[in-house]
Amino acid sequence: MSGAVNFKKCGSVLVTGASRGLGLQIVDSLARGCFSPGKIVATTRNPASTQKLQELAEKHPNIHIITLGKAEKNHDVVSQESIEKSVEEVGQLVQEEGLNCLINNAGINVVADFQTVTAEMMIENFHTNAVAPLMITKAFQPLLKRAASRGGAGGTGSMGIQRAAVINMTSLLGSVELNWGERANNLKWYPYRTSKSALNMVSRCMAVDLEPDGILCMAIHPGWVRTDMGGSEAPLSPEESVSSLLSVIGGLTEKDHGSFLNFTGESLPW
Amino acid sequence: MSGAVNFKKCGSVLVTGASRGLGLQIVDSLARGCFSPGKIVATTRNPASTQKLQELAEKHPNIHIITLGKAEKNHDVVSQESIEKSVEEVGQLVQEEGLNCLINNAGINVVADFQTVTAEMMIENFHTNAVAPLMITKAFQPLLKRAASRGGAGGTGSMGIQRAAVINMTSLLGSVELNWGERANNLKWYPYRTSKSALNMVSRCMAVDLEPDGILCMAIHPGWVRTDMGGSEAPLSPEESVSSLLSVIGGLTEKDHGSFLNFTGESLPW
Repeated sequence: MSGAVNFKKCGSVLVTGASRGLGLQIVDSLARGCFSPGKIVATTRNPASTQKLQELAEKHPNIHIITLGKAEKNHDVVSQESIEKSVEEVGQLVQEEGLNCLINNAGINVVADFQTVTAEMMIENFHTNAVAPLMITKAFQPLLKRAASRGGAGGTGSMGIQRAAVINMTSLLGSVELNWGERANNLKWYPYRTSKSALNMVSRCMAVDLEPDGILCMAIHPGWVRTDMGGSEAPLSPEESVSSLLSVIGGLTEKDHGSFLNFTGESLPW
Repeated sequence: MSGAVNFKKCGSVLVTGASRGLGLQIVDSLARGCFSPGKIVATTRNPASTQKLQELAEKHPNIHIITLGKAEKNHDVVSQESIEKSVEEVGQLVQEEGLNCLINNAGINVVADFQTVTAEMMIENFHTNAVAPLMITKAFQPLLKRAASRGGAGGTGSMGIQRAAVINMTSLLGSVELNWGERANNLKWYPYRTSKSALNMVSRCMAVDLEPDGILCMAIHPGWVRTDMGGSEAPLSPEESVSSLLSVIGGLTEKDHGSFLNFTGESLPW
């Protein structure tokens, strides 16, 4: 797997939503790869209740579990206080090397169609899938900038995960252009689709603002995967999706900055 | 103006956010046109404080002012209760003819860049610009459906404002594709851009769901206009923008269903 090779040059990776599904698989695949990154920071809302992640961390000493997104009041949205606390902890972990790669993977799917959708559902999904990645990236910017300023492995200064990168896990369902015809009739998920379109715009906006510091930023679709979210009929196993994802992420260069890619590496329409 | 001609065949138009800016201009231009629609419903958050709209309504008896979006608690977002009340009032006004054209024009611009943006700002703009048009359209669907089922003027059954249409006032700034290079560096408005990308997805989702009833749905960019929102340096006067907008809206046909058009009628990238 060519991607894993490139993660050797990546000192640290942070993955949000790492307790299950794709997030857990990303941590697993990164830890088990022949060329694992120096530090894998796995964030979860409640570390105590995530047995699989705990077991992984026992086997692989480069996995560090950190709390991010403690439930606030009646909802599960990540709190600003929790974000700031996690930045402090990660800062102590990575020290002057900074954070090389932030994978905004945490996300939810509030399923509702035209008849059942409510304002609250729209806002809940938007908050978790589009606003949280923005607030998390803002908070981690100093650590990403620190890593980027070191110029990356070899000090070439070219963009990529060996230097600093923000990867936003988006979805094909966030493509407004592709939401038409057969594709549109299958999955009429207003809150989810809208939150992912919003995340795509957030990703593009952040790419513009992170570029001067040499921080790559892009959005990637993981495919339709057999996770709790994807369901049992999905064509891809988490291993297959993540193997391909990490290969693409590992090979990102300046030309991919601001892009929206499929897990296979092809460009997708907004 | 070719558009105005077509509004003759449109029994009723509802415009949200009609107390000022583009909304007020749309009501004004529709009322003053040679071929004004039978009923112009102008909605505003607080009819008592909108002198210009009141004056217009005194001159043109086909203008009906209705309250929509009474401020709820600490924010200005339209309330579900207010939406439902407005549907009742409009239903009594249009009776069995239904509502031919819903223009979701109301919107706000919460200006914030990467450094200043907060979760609250993102949610406020999203709620008003993307969620409210969805909830309003859902609520007015029975009235739109009633109009659409009559087959439109001439009973041809073709799509357009003579039958039933939902027009979402979006923005070029909601185009993810165009948010790059020079264009991106000028206006780094995270909450606004994201809310309009979200509205574009909502518009596309609704187009899919309204199509079986023959209700056209699309998103249109009004240009950069000298309103309170656009500022004094904008190249277009409200009259110029609205004249062109109404011409495009008046000429919409089935081929424009689900589209994202400029005020000049050209297609824009998502």
